[in-house]
Amino acid sequence: LSDLARADCRYAISGHYQLPPAETLRRVGERAADADRDVYGTGATLNRFEHRVAEFLGKEAAVFMPSGTMAQQILLRIVADGTGNRAFAAHPTTHVVLHEQNGFAALHQMHFVPVGPADAPLTLAHVEVLRDPIATLLLELPQREIGATLPTWNELAAIVAYAKEHGWHLHLDGARLWECGPYYARPYAEIARLFDTVYVSFYKGLGGIAGAMLLGSRALIDEAKIWQRRQGGNLVSLYPYALSAEQAFDDRLDRMASYLDAAQRVAAALRRYPQVEVRSAPPPTNTFHAMIRGDRDALRQRAQKLALDHGIWAFKDLAPTVTPGVFKWEIYAGDATLALGEKRLTLALSTLFT
Amino acid sequence: LSDLARADCRYAISGHYQLPPAETLRRVGERAADADRDVYGTGATLNRFEHRVAEFLGKEAAVFMPSGTMAQQILLRIVADGTGNRAFAAHPTTHVVLHEQNGFAALHQMHFVPVGPADAPLTLAHVEVLRDPIATLLLELPQREIGATLPTWNELAAIVAYAKEHGWHLHLDGARLWECGPYYARPYAEIARLFDTVYVSFYKGLGGIAGAMLLGSRALIDEAKIWQRRQGGNLVSLYPYALSAEQAFDDRLDRMASYLDAAQRVAAALRRYPQVEVRSAPPPTNTFHAMIRGDRDALRQRAQKLALDHGIWAFKDLAPTVTPGVFKWEIYAGDATLALGEKRLTLALSTLFT
Repeated sequence: LSDLARADCRYAISGHYQLPPAETLRRVGERAADADRDVYGTGATLNRFEHRVAEFLGKEAAVFMPSGTMAQQILLRIVADGTGNRAFAAHPTTHVVLHEQNGFAALHQMHFVPVGPADAPLTLAHVEVLRDPIATLLLELPQREIGATLPTWNELAAIVAYAKEHGWHLHLDGARLWECGPYYARPYAEIARLFDTVYVSFYKGLGGIAGAMLLGSRALIDEAKIWQRRQGGNLVSLYPYALSAEQAFDDRLDRMASYLDAAQRVAAALRRYPQVEVRSAPPPTNTFHAMIRGDRDALRQRAQKLALDHGIWAFKDLAPTVTPGVFKWEIYAGDATLALGEKRLTLALSTLFT
Repeated sequence: LSDLARADCRYAISGHYQLPPAETLRRVGERAADADRDVYGTGATLNRFEHRVAEFLGKEAAVFMPSGTMAQQILLRIVADGTGNRAFAAHPTTHVVLHEQNGFAALHQMHFVPVGPADAPLTLAHVEVLRDPIATLLLELPQREIGATLPTWNELAAIVAYAKEHGWHLHLDGARLWECGPYYARPYAEIARLFDTVYVSFYKGLGGIAGAMLLGSRALIDEAKIWQRRQGGNLVSLYPYALSAEQAFDDRLDRMASYLDAAQRVAAALRRYPQVEVRSAPPPTNTFHAMIRGDRDALRQRAQKLALDHGIWAFKDLAPTVTPGVFKWEIYAGDATLALGEKRLTLALSTLFT
């Protein structure tokens, strides 16, 4: 329903444009004139795209999968089987534990070791107090659930050095890795090189239909393909996702700096309202959380009014937080944000918060 | 490579037409003007399609999944957890055991009990000698690996009655269920009603891009959705597969009788050659196996010649069998077979076998 209401609006504060399936498929098809059909993971177009992203991130090999849920569970399982240790450590808000119905345990008998506090970014100090023997340390960059925050490069390098010293497999949950580029101001391969393996998504920030890649050594990726078949993700053809993913990669990766700039402008505008607090201001990525004190129903009604009167979409609802009367609005600055313009942004925020 | 060569031919003996991705996506998009975007399994278009197939097969509920591998493992796991018994019985050639890298064991710790001989269809007599306690009996209709054979309706009913007496969960691997309609000459719901749960595919016979459905009671399907998320198949959007699946369902289900008729004509024509033996003649479904005695390389070269000289695609290669010098050709009579015509069929077979 949220999408239907959003689809009725010409403008939006957050995200990209959302087209109806017919239009998305038409556009993907139109640009894929020379693509061949992949069959069970093999096909020139698909394999070229995998190779291209592997090169771009400085990894030996890559495999396209339907979802990050599948890619990351598979990685954790391979390392667990290889080391005989089923424990992995990650921030308490990791997607693997919060959003996958405990597939890591139900399918892979993995054991989760939380590291660091649930409401703050991970630091070396948190990692240093880890006592459980673990096989994998999974780092998420940026840490989405706490406002897409990022450690400084030095803090990150220190965590990585500590992990290597302890012989842990270091895995990057890069669901939003593309969003880290402007903050670290380094080639993506330099970030990815810190890790043994990397997962990236093609729909969240890049706006493809769905799909993910797992990257690492050739031996590990070959093993991951076997698990992909086991898990039911070695589909007869993945081209609707893979073609859309590559087009999104071509179109949007270079816009990440503009998105960050737009996010910082929206964040600054929001901070003018006393009832709004922006987590980690200025936001290091183009995704951030605005914490809003107020009446949830009234805010929802104002967002509806904004949509009806001005064709500007803000949100369908806000998420509750641990603090009563404070609600969370996750803003992802994307194509829609770029197209909104200062004047409409000012109008929108004053409709919502004055 | 097989597809590329096939794509170069105007005609083919087996299968449907294979279009390049660009053209498939264009056609799917064109017919989906009113479709809405599904989000994590929820969307009017997707859920209407699930409901429609559930009604058609006389089941309470259905869930669309990326693959049958996923759907069937999930079903087996739910029954195992519910009964505390991890054993399931099936024909030795079941897809679950032959083609899924043992996901049933590696992910779900299931135990496989083979029933019946590997080279013959399952009968009541085979099931009656089962001694292991099992939770699920999985029947595949038709039994693909041994030539898409079918038990008679009475044999099937007897197996089903025996399974019910013993309190087993009865699951239908209906990857090619659509192909059974003409032989049983009963509504599909009457076949599906024999089983507690059913899996159907939308790409094999129907020619969609990919995708499957699991059908059963509402409680079981609700549980299956949780496992679908665990397994990484609850994608943010499934519409490229689901829309293509529904279009294929609309277009091709009514053609199954013509496909069977075409299969029987091809089988009869093949039997005129002494080196060709057709398994289960006349074939009960539009898929059948021709066992060909000859030199494999020479046959491959003749197929290439047929493609080059007449633009008719037969096969890229034949599969070896347990008998040296005898090779297997699996023929699926589909849209291409219908379009081939008697004259071209005669020419093709005489090029291959004279």
